[in-house]
Amino acid sequence: MTQQIEFTLPAYPYGFHLVTSQVLSQIGKLPETGILHLFIKHTSAGLTINENADASVPDDIKQFFSDWIPDHYPKFEHVYEGRDDMPAHIKSSVVGQSVSIPITNGKLNMGTWQGIYLCEFRYSGGRRKIVATILS
Amino acid sequence: MTQQIEFTLPAYPYGFHLVTSQVLSQIGKLPETGILHLFIKHTSAGLTINENADASVPDDIKQFFSDWIPDHYPKFEHVYEGRDDMPAHIKSSVVGQSVSIPITNGKLNMGTWQGIYLCEFRYSGGRRKIVATILS
Amino acid sequence: MTQQIEFTLPAYPYGFHLVTSQVLSQIGKLPETGILHLFIKHTSAGLTINENADASVPDDIKQFFSDWIPDHYPKFEHVYEGRDDMPAHIKSSVVGQSVSIPITNGKLNMGTWQGIYLCEFRYSGGRRKIVATILS
Repeated sequence: MTQQIEFTLPAYPYGFHLVTSQVLSQIGKLPETGILHLFIKHTSAGLTINENADASVPDDIKQFFSDWIPDHYPKFEHVYEGRDDMPAHIKSSVVGQSVSIPITNGKLNMGTWQGIYLCEFRYSGGRRKIVATILS
Repeated sequence: MTQQIEFTLPAYPYGFHLVTSQVLSQIGKLPETGILHLFIKHTSAGLTINENADASVPDDIKQFFSDWIPDHYPKFEHVYEGRDDMPAHIKSSVVGQSVSIPITNGKLNMGTWQGIYLCEFRYSGGRRKIVATILS
Repeated sequence: MTQQIEFTLPAYPYGFHLVTSQVLSQIGKLPETGILHLFIKHTSAGLTINENADASVPDDIKQFFSDWIPDHYPKFEHVYEGRDDMPAHIKSSVVGQSVSIPITNGKLNMGTWQGIYLCEFRYSGGRRKIVATILS
């Protein structure tokens, strides 16, 4: 009883963007019990779960990540796709390209403060493709 | 044939805590083949798998993470929930809020040295809610 | 309808190694729709997805990770298994020990530039055991 849908999120600027409601509007009715698996088909973006309440949280994560992996890291050799490309690849593997969330009683069973974030690690990443798979 | 149970782990101090046996005692009989998916319903804690033998391993990971994301990072704006809050949010997205482990012949099919860790990233995080979903 | 197979990847040197074709050759025919879950049974290696085209990308990730967690980090206590052991444990929890990839129309539904990487974090890690579980 696996359901699957592929959809596209609009272009977002560099940073962490709450997309819980956009995702829910795409996937339709959920089963009683199962797992929602979300996968982003890109290597310079990611998906994560973090606090959904105060916008200073994703802003601080973005700032910390920018400081941690600077655009002009002197040892990077892969620079011809732009100074933000190699940092984006590393951040993508660090946060990961999928999240999986339990479904309970027909709803996503996240904590009160949890939301789904699109992690856009490029300065002009464009639209991003997501595959949602519902296992039940 | 999806099974699911939600349970609470007791409060742990800041650090990485081996919880394999606590998890197993909660989830009961496993199917012959499948996946155990564990999800923590919090954004300042995480779940990971790491060495289950020598306590100096989780201690060193904790130390490294503490040095890497210091409590008083000068650029953090989200500080009103405590100096440990913003580092906890970042660490949570770095290690992740779920683990999924194969089930083979009715048992978790981890390596000899693998154990499940609760990553408590707050100094007083309190009890933590876990959702265990068994897909088979 | 869960299928599962356990296989071994040959020893790789320290670094990130594209193993998409090796994985596909092991797992055989995929179902129409589902999830491929890959799990590495080790705590000093990992699995991730990243760019499959230019070898400078995995080389730069390796370089950045080596600089970030140096072998002789002065606060590490767990040093008796080798100077590369503790950095390997941390990197393993950062990139993670599993990846899960959607299956659509009987094929892995990754983006054009995505490939599966074995992350070998030890200098002589030896052969690595993988469990592939196909949920459909």
